[in-house]
Amino acid sequence: MPSEFDLIARYFAASPVRRPDVALGVGDDCALLEVPPGRQLAVSIDTLVEGSHFAKGAEPRSLGHKALAVNLSDLAAMGAEPAWATLALTLPVPDEAWLAAFADGFLELAAQFGVQLVGGDTTRGPLSITVQVHGFVAPGRALRRDGAKPGDLVYVTGTLGDAGLALLAQQGLFVGLGVVEGVRARLDRPTPRLGEGRALAGLASAAIDVSDGLAADLGHIGARSGVGATLHLDSLPLSPTVREYVAGTGDWSVPLSAGDDYELCVTVPAARQAEVEALAQYFACGLTWIGTVDRTPGIRCLLPDGSLLAGGPAGWDPFRDG
Amino acid sequence: MPSEFDLIARYFAASPVRRPDVALGVGDDCALLEVPPGRQLAVSIDTLVEGSHFAKGAEPRSLGHKALAVNLSDLAAMGAEPAWATLALTLPVPDEAWLAAFADGFLELAAQFGVQLVGGDTTRGPLSITVQVHGFVAPGRALRRDGAKPGDLVYVTGTLGDAGLALLAQQGLFVGLGVVEGVRARLDRPTPRLGEGRALAGLASAAIDVSDGLAADLGHIGARSGVGATLHLDSLPLSPTVREYVAGTGDWSVPLSAGDDYELCVTVPAARQAEVEALAQYFACGLTWIGTVDRTPGIRCLLPDGSLLAGGPAGWDPFRDG
Repeated sequence: MPSEFDLIARYFAASPVRRPDVALGVGDDCALLEVPPGRQLAVSIDTLVEGSHFAKGAEPRSLGHKALAVNLSDLAAMGAEPAWATLALTLPVPDEAWLAAFADGFLELAAQFGVQLVGGDTTRGPLSITVQVHGFVAPGRALRRDGAKPGDLVYVTGTLGDAGLALLAQQGLFVGLGVVEGVRARLDRPTPRLGEGRALAGLASAAIDVSDGLAADLGHIGARSGVGATLHLDSLPLSPTVREYVAGTGDWSVPLSAGDDYELCVTVPAARQAEVEALAQYFACGLTWIGTVDRTPGIRCLLPDGSLLAGGPAGWDPFRDG
Repeated sequence: MPSEFDLIARYFAASPVRRPDVALGVGDDCALLEVPPGRQLAVSIDTLVEGSHFAKGAEPRSLGHKALAVNLSDLAAMGAEPAWATLALTLPVPDEAWLAAFADGFLELAAQFGVQLVGGDTTRGPLSITVQVHGFVAPGRALRRDGAKPGDLVYVTGTLGDAGLALLAQQGLFVGLGVVEGVRARLDRPTPRLGEGRALAGLASAAIDVSDGLAADLGHIGARSGVGATLHLDSLPLSPTVREYVAGTGDWSVPLSAGDDYELCVTVPAARQAEVEALAQYFACGLTWIGTVDRTPGIRCLLPDGSLLAGGPAGWDPFRDG
């Protein structure tokens, strides 16, 4: 239909990325794409819904960034090289200023990682954003969820809980500390750990991106691998803001369960610890050893005094709360 | 998150399609897929929104069929062989009966064309359904929109206007004729013309699927190819119901502009007419010559008496009406 492609085409025409593996991009019934010989295609699709994943009136530039970032994070968690994206945008009205800002945020991140927008659909309805990303990975090198073994070490990139604390502050549920801009940016404009994921492909035994919260996501690795894990809470990488929050409240749920961090959680065979830690020297975001895989299903969290965190961690269920 | 994959996994586990080119399906951060050597990947993404593309309370089994069918129709229009689908489903509440029926409709059509569901996302919000399809096509054989030349012949598969008439009847805007079940099925459960599209790949000069209405979609071919077309209205393939409607009302907008038919409109070099018509003997849905490509931009419609249809045809704009 004219409008859908016009909208996509008009606001996304500024994309500076022109990949040689795109034989035909936006504007026909399908895009035509060329996967490099000897590579598997990795794909992931995710939706952000107004009122569920972001607040009404959320800033469109950040939304454009985040809608792509959360998908690229899935490629990162697979150890894949990003290539193409498609975008299905549902809008109540065709608001030109909103679209221009949204496209800016989306395209800026896309350009940073060499991702070309190759297709889309614009429809009328309550605001929601669906993105599919496409990347490449060599057969056998993908970071799956099902490869963790008892004795493997659990690592995580970056810091945990910043996005969760920013969300609490945004919702007015937490006012105890001044939440600094850096923490807020972790919620609004997460950084997909694509370079880190690719570096860990072939080394880590399993990986996932932390979207639902560390405990829930590590739980997914456990469930798929038939293992469990024990985490040392005093090893969790925390920003000064989150460290101060946990010290002041005793509430570990922010770094453990709040989600939206988009860090990578990986398991590493103990025999490869030295290799991984040497590699991690080059990760600007850092890589921290936080626990160990064991045979007992479930995730156990040890407090700094060696006692078990009561109640246990809980993940996020899209249908559990509004 | 547990629920999203649980939902997708639970209701879509019944899928009988297990393709050897799927290295890893639903349940990890990404699906891992293998495009055959020497083939391009064709992808298309489309969203159906409640209240915009289907009525509140629409029957979920038909919706499951239609959400996949409208996407497969884009592969058909490209002459591509279908392979995989992803599904992003936004639901107000996790209604198990709805999901089971939706999955049935989706998977039944998927099985019919050997399509495997390889990934998805389930989110909470106003009902909408986004599907991306993935297929294969040999380089240079894809049916694009930009290859039509003056003198090419315009053909269309099947019949036009059935879905549009069923929609008018459903909305209570037309009660003049009993709309038979067959016409209603054209709206609710369209058939993607995949075999026909693949057969025409390498023969037709351009193609599109009729989703917005024949005139608008042929207009898209014209705009991309830098040509126009003249249609002979008395050549349009019409079902008896639509023929009776047009004869009774003089309203050509139903077959010309109502959309949702998901037939293929193709242009064919005159030199290949005999080849195409020989091929079309094997199309159960038929293939009808309806007009000619010319140099003048726009679509002209000639009435049976040789005069020009006044006002001209109009396509459908998602933001023009509710």
